[in-house]
Amino acid sequence: MSASPLLAQLIEALRCLPGVGSKSAQRMAYHLLERDREGGLRLSAALAEAVEKVGHCESCRDFSETPVCAICASASRERGLLCAIESPADRLAIETATGYRGLYFVLQGRLSPLDGIGPKELGLDKLAARLAQGEVRELIIATNPTVEGEATAHYLAQLARQAGVTPSRLAHGLPLGGELEYVDRGTLAHAFGSRSEIPS
Amino acid sequence: MSASPLLAQLIEALRCLPGVGSKSAQRMAYHLLERDREGGLRLSAALAEAVEKVGHCESCRDFSETPVCAICASASRERGLLCAIESPADRLAIETATGYRGLYFVLQGRLSPLDGIGPKELGLDKLAARLAQGEVRELIIATNPTVEGEATAHYLAQLARQAGVTPSRLAHGLPLGGELEYVDRGTLAHAFGSRSEIPS
Repeated sequence: MSASPLLAQLIEALRCLPGVGSKSAQRMAYHLLERDREGGLRLSAALAEAVEKVGHCESCRDFSETPVCAICASASRERGLLCAIESPADRLAIETATGYRGLYFVLQGRLSPLDGIGPKELGLDKLAARLAQGEVRELIIATNPTVEGEATAHYLAQLARQAGVTPSRLAHGLPLGGELEYVDRGTLAHAFGSRSEIPS
Repeated sequence: MSASPLLAQLIEALRCLPGVGSKSAQRMAYHLLERDREGGLRLSAALAEAVEKVGHCESCRDFSETPVCAICASASRERGLLCAIESPADRLAIETATGYRGLYFVLQGRLSPLDGIGPKELGLDKLAARLAQGEVRELIIATNPTVEGEATAHYLAQLARQAGVTPSRLAHGLPLGGELEYVDRGTLAHAFGSRSEIPS
């Protein structure tokens, strides 16, 4: 029993965060009330504003508070390259790690018929229409290398070919800095089979 | 670079939670926006309400949105027993694990002269006044078994004796279900020295 119903309500509400159980929620609530009430207020306002205003970009389906997101609206991005990814977090990872200057299309999921997620849920009708416009010349398929991700990639490649767009896929192989001994068998077999000649 | 400034603001605000770095904050923000906008709104409201309304109980210094908290106001608690603890989380732990039916006094910290935390910051003047009233007959000192906690316990015990109140301390020894081999030396030495005869 907590001495304060409002505190109990806050602890319960914090549990909607992923990876936060009752113990962490309790620690967070105490921390905010004891040491960072200002941060708590800021978080409350940021949450309300984001939930209310952040929707999806009409063009790439990424999160955006404007109809078209900053990247899609940017004049400095190469419009002939389109990279299909599963989630907004993947976009952030690619933007941080690579020098990619093209555009994105965020599927917000992957094909998973058992969960009722088909081409329509991923906005693939929208993607097909966009590919048909002729502006895109290469569709870089960057879905995750899982079974469902591979199935989605296969579907996307067909979609691209139908529209006369070149589909491409991220390279698979040994991770940099990894050791052969600790790499999983599937990856090792793939890397072995896809070995390339060393240019002289 | 995030496609949405509001999203970036939310990720930054989430970092005020203890144990949440930029990666977790990002995951939390995406989760809330993708799958649980309702939970996000609930959390926002609960945070704002708690930060605004939850203060400290006049009697025990625990969190409370009323001047006197539910436990201190309860007629069914034994008013002769007072348990001094460092934080509200400790009260929750004692309430959950034990059948204690007395009252609490939350120090909201421990004596730590180097950090500028003296008797006044812990409300010990208030505690002394309460002990002097004569209602309390035993002060159960449940500070943590750390150096600072022990120093605080020593100070509290003196305070109790001055007011003619019996001070008591939680037992130290082997944790239940622990193994001798893995218990730290200090605890083992203490448990060995404080061994008790097995009643026949």
